[in-house]
Parts: sequence; structure tokens; C-alpha cells
Amino acid sequence: MSRPPITSASITFLGTASAQPSSTRNHSSLALRLGGDVWLFDCGEATQHQLQRSTVKLGKVEKIFITHTHGDHIFGLIPVLASRLNGAGGTVDDADDPRHQVDHQMPPLEIYGPYGTRAYVRSGLLYTHTLLSAPYVVHELRTPSDPPSGDNISLPLHSAELPSGRDILQSEDQPLWTDIYKDAVVSVSAAPIFHSVPCVGYVVTEAPVPGKIDPKQYAPELKRTGAPMTLMRQLQQGESVQLPDGTILHGPPRRPGRKIVILGDTYDASPIIPLAKDADILIHEATNAHLPDVDSHTKATDTYESVEERANSRGHSTPQVAGAFATRTRARKLLLNHFSARYPGDDDCNEWSKKVMDAIKSLAATEYEGEIVCARDFMTIDCKLPILD
Amino acid sequence: MSRPPITSASITFLGTASAQPSSTRNHSSLALRLGGDVWLFDCGEATQHQLQRSTVKLGKVEKIFITHTHGDHIFGLIPVLASRLNGAGGTVDDADDPRHQVDHQMPPLEIYGPYGTRAYVRSGLLYTHTLLSAPYVVHELRTPSDPPSGDNISLPLHSAELPSGRDILQSEDQPLWTDIYKDAVVSVSAAPIFHSVPCVGYVVTEAPVPGKIDPKQYAPELKRTGAPMTLMRQLQQGESVQLPDGTILHGPPRRPGRKIVILGDTYDASPIIPLAKDADILIHEATNAHLPDVDSHTKATDTYESVEERANSRGHSTPQVAGAFATRTRARKLLLNHFSARYPGDDDCNEWSKKVMDAIKSLAATEYEGEIVCARDFMTIDCKLPILD
Repeated sequence: MSRPPITSASITFLGTASAQPSSTRNHSSLALRLGGDVWLFDCGEATQHQLQRSTVKLGKVEKIFITHTHGDHIFGLIPVLASRLNGAGGTVDDADDPRHQVDHQMPPLEIYGPYGTRAYVRSGLLYTHTLLSAPYVVHELRTPSDPPSGDNISLPLHSAELPSGRDILQSEDQPLWTDIYKDAVVSVSAAPIFHSVPCVGYVVTEAPVPGKIDPKQYAPELKRTGAPMTLMRQLQQGESVQLPDGTILHGPPRRPGRKIVILGDTYDASPIIPLAKDADILIHEATNAHLPDVDSHTKATDTYESVEERANSRGHSTPQVAGAFATRTRARKLLLNHFSARYPGDDDCNEWSKKVMDAIKSLAATEYEGEIVCARDFMTIDCKLPILD
Repeated sequence: MSRPPITSASITFLGTASAQPSSTRNHSSLALRLGGDVWLFDCGEATQHQLQRSTVKLGKVEKIFITHTHGDHIFGLIPVLASRLNGAGGTVDDADDPRHQVDHQMPPLEIYGPYGTRAYVRSGLLYTHTLLSAPYVVHELRTPSDPPSGDNISLPLHSAELPSGRDILQSEDQPLWTDIYKDAVVSVSAAPIFHSVPCVGYVVTEAPVPGKIDPKQYAPELKRTGAPMTLMRQLQQGESVQLPDGTILHGPPRRPGRKIVILGDTYDASPIIPLAKDADILIHEATNAHLPDVDSHTKATDTYESVEERANSRGHSTPQVAGAFATRTRARKLLLNHFSARYPGDDDCNEWSKKVMDAIKSLAATEYEGEIVCARDFMTIDCKLPILD
């Protein structure tokens, strides 16, 4: 597939709550927009509803990455699949129902997730008699304790499920899944992170982009030798060109593209460190926080340590854990996400909610000096290339 | 179980859309409130979100009846189960996680649905590692073409699933499921209705209620014989009492209680007629309508007949079909439900939506002379006993 260079990249949070939805936060899901393409990360219940309310187009979703199969991250997956792949079926009244046959000319919707994702989707589709008009495929990220192949399900493939779903094993030399997806412009790698069930962190890396070019450095040479000015385009891409007089000009070296790290639920994400270093954006959960001066429900006996210990025992992090991880991996920006339902998400218009989110941000700031943002449903964050010196 | 007499009964629509949600209609679900108890009928995606936005309390849900296992009627079931039965688990920070053991002292949440409901719930819970702190049980309504026992799933029971889920076969003399639930005050029966997949209609019947008592008829007799006036209470219940002088007084005969008929998706509900006659409220789908003067998307070549034929071929009804069924079963009130996503549900505040719903109501009125109401999300309908003459 030829993908155009990434002119714009952004993240839209579709759900930022842990466990249960609230009136201001839905279950986990976020959309990464790379140009016109949309990749979803997690798909909690009502993700399609949130998409309808956002500017992200369901019809543009081409890949879905699941961090783990807990319900608050996956209950919306089959509904999204049904709406995305039914096309007209079932809703438009004036066509033959297209769901009765799968159009195998269509590129499949690709789903990535841990072992069990395939079984969840297949059983859910089959027991609900769901017909799809376009294919899907599930690639599973297997850990050494998972079986290397097989789906843990006795049901046959759904008529729309491609048998080409890969069972992706970890690299032989390290416990990572390297380049689970890769094209000329972008690649995705992944690693297990520690949670109460098998959980994955994803790293989206843009291929190196052109360096900063100074035309004054090249234009006189091109003019001097009568070479066409269109060579500038090749130089700008970092290539070397030979001029009519034999001189070789080298374009400026390419520089690293964007790196975005999207973690699932975790109490310790350290296994992903080899992939996660120097991210432009790190998205880390911060389910639990100790806010004695802000949250009146804080137990008198609780301390920062006891809240962290309890969060940890349930597989979750505090803002301080997230901050420390951002520092350790030298992230340029930290987005806190996946908040307990007790912390509302309307801090753009509610003073008290802003106070809570500011307090959470301050906790993370005790461990991290970079920019920190607390995610909110429907918040969009631009992923910019770092500015060149 | 001793259930108090039904002092109030009401229906709250939680979702009134077919197939896909819209900004004004969610997927199918409605709550029947009998006093303080809540029974859900269907559980489309985001039913728990709709409950949060309504006055119906999730914590009061004790039974869930599924009409059929299409996603728009069942995708929200496991999330509702998880939120309803997790109790504090996962959301309250200051308790041992109660989800690690099931409290078998709690009465189970009871789910009724067609064959496949049990497999859907069990697989969904297991593949998502969902822990529940209270038990649930699934009773399946089997048709002669379903296996009489077995769950069509090789997975073991979930730790919270009771093995006492019944496989309810149809009555020997007629293709109905009679008294699938019954206590002293209310009973539920069911019948298959025609749709594109196995589908059920439910009939909720209140036990006979006291007749109208005229105290003037009894009080003088009680006084005359020196009988205690408290006997009036027994008379009011329709009982007979013997007075000190041997006279026997008969209370007024009991009269039928409320009858509420809730149908799933159907193009022909006639198999349920033996149970559905003389309902106080009939809820019938009306997915497709021909609205040439109102809906600008109406195809020029379409007619009432062609729209009905298409609806029928996809297992659905027009308002006229719903009206004809209401007439045939002598329903006292017809609630139209399950509208195509093209028909918005904000007719309480939007003139155009009101025009559409009025047009749909008019179509049903060509076949039915009683009261017709077009359902809207969050609309609550009181179910009153018919007024005595």
C-alpha cells in the first residue's frame, strides 16, 4: 500500500474513563488520525456513539488496536465492526441487503489485540447472527505463555473473517512485537505491559522525514551547472544528486519522524521502554490519585503511598507513576488518561472539575518536568513534528 | 418470593432505534417498572448509558428479557451485567475487590432469551476476563428446531453463572412458552414471532385485582351482626366471609389485572395472538414507513405496498402492520417502537420530527382506532388499570 506522507496527525480521545462510564467520560477509546486515515486504539462500549458525536469519521476507520480484552476497552468493538462493515445493510431501505455476501474486493478492517481478541469477536458476531458486507481480520499478539497458534475457540471463522489473521510471536532476542504493521511512512510496534490481564502498549513511529533544507546552499550550484531546479525536490528528501559537471550534492540528512506511545492499563509499563524512548507523545493511564485537599471522598487514613499500593494491586497507576515513566523514557509530552469515574471530565467548563484535574496534573509534575495534559472526552491533540533548531 | 401488589407500573423507553443509533434514538431497550422493581426488555449497546441518563435505577434491575440476539438488542447486555453485578468492584477504591468471589447469597440476576443467549453471555464474559460479584442465570426459550438442551458452547460456566438456567420448551398443546415466570402478583408468558432470526414476544400479566367494592352494600350487614369492620378488607379482596349469624357475604369478583405485550422485531406476530388478546398496552415495532409527503428521501418509485414488501422481506413491519395487529388483538393502546434511523426521535421539541411521527401515527391509524403513541427515548408511559364502569 502506498501511503502519502503524513501531513497532519492528531489524537482524539473518545473515552477517558476507567471501568464505568460517567456523564462526562465514556469507556476507553481514542482515534489516531494520520492524514485521512483513522486508527482506533481500544473500543469501549458506545465508541460508535462517541464517534457520531465527534469529527472522526467511522467510515475512515481502517485499523483497530486493542490493548487488552477487558470490557471497558472492547465491549464496543463488535458494534463498531457491525456499523463500519455493514455499509448500507440494514439501514438503507432501497437496496438489496448487501450483508448477505461479503465483498472480498474490499480491504479488510484490521484488528490487532492480545490472544483472545479473535475468539471474542468471532463468538460475538456468530451468536448475534451479525452479517458483514466487507471482510475483517484479527492479528493476535502472543506472549510466551499463550499457545503459539490456534484461537481458543471451537467456532468456525465468520463468513467475513479472513483466515490470514496472524499469530504474532515476540522477537527472538527480546520480548517485543516489532513492526506488527509497517509501510513506507509509518510502522507500529508493541510490547507487553504489566496489568491484571495480558495487556499491550503500542508505539506508532513515523518513518524519518526530510531534514531542514537551506535552498541558498544548493540553488547557486544548480544554477551554475545548468541543472534543473527540480532536483531540489530530491535534495529535500535527503537524497544525493549528481550535477552535470560531476559534482555530487547531498541533501540534508533525514530526521526522526513522530513517535506516539499509547499504553493500555498498567501498573508498570517498563517492558515497553526499549520501544518507547523519546516519544513526542506518551499516553499513560492514571486511574487513581490521592487528592486529600480536593476530593472530599478521600479516606482520612489514605496516603499517597497507600493509594499507589492499592492502584498497583489492581493493575493501575497513579499520576506519579505516569510522570516517572515519562521522565524515564524522555517523553516530550505526557497525556494522562483512564481516570476513575469519580473524577469528572468537564474541566473545560466546570471549576471544580478543573481543580481536580489540575491537582492530578500537579501529582504527575512531581515526577516529570515536561508538558502534561489530562485527557478529556472529545479533546483533540495535534501531534506535531518537533521544531528543528 | 412474596411480591407486593403492583401499586404503579410504567414503561420507560431507553432506546427506540432500529439497527444503528442516532443522536436522538439509541438501540432497543425498555424498562418496565413494577413498583420498585425494574425489568429490562432488550439491551442494545449503551443501555447502561441510557439508564444513567434516565430515572430508572440500574441497581433495581432484577430481570432482563431478550427478544432476540441481534446486536442492536443485545450488545449492551454484558456491560449491563458487569455494571449491575460488579457492585463496588473496580470502581470504589477503598474495599477489597469483591469481584474475586461471587456472593451466592445474592439472588441471581435472571436473563430470559432465545437459544444462543447463554452462549453469547458466557463467551463474552470469559473472553473479557469479566469478574462478577453476584450470580446470574440464563433461561432459554427453545423452539422445536433448537436442541432441547445444551448450550451450543464448549466453554465451561462462568463462575457467576448458575447451572440452574432452564431450557424452557414450548407447551405440548400449543407453540407457546406459558408462565416462564410467575409469582402471586405477576406472570410472564412468551411466544415466538416471525423475524429473520428466532425472536420472542413477551406478555406480562398482572394477577386478577380486587373488583370495585361498594361499602354501602356490606357495612350495614357487618354492623347488624356485630362482625368486625376489618372483615371489609377480606371482602375487598374478593373473598367470602361468614358473619356471626351464619350469613355468608361474597366480596365483588376480582377483575383482570394489567396486560402488557412487548414484541421484538417482527414482520408477523400472529403466533402470539393466543396470549396477546385484550392487552392494555401493545408495543409493536414499526421500522419502515412510506412517507411520500413528509420524507424527502422517499424514492419516487416506492409505494405503500413496495415499502411493506421490503420491510417484510427483512423481517420488519410498517405502522399499518402494527395497527392491524393491534386491532386483531383488541389492544387498548398501541405503542409504536423501533424506528429506522432516518426518523428522528426529538418530536417533543422539533417541528419536523413531530411531522414525521404524526405521519407514522396516521399510517397506523388507518388500521387501528385506539390510542397510538410513537415511542421516543426516555418517554415514560404509565400502565394504568382500565377504569371500572
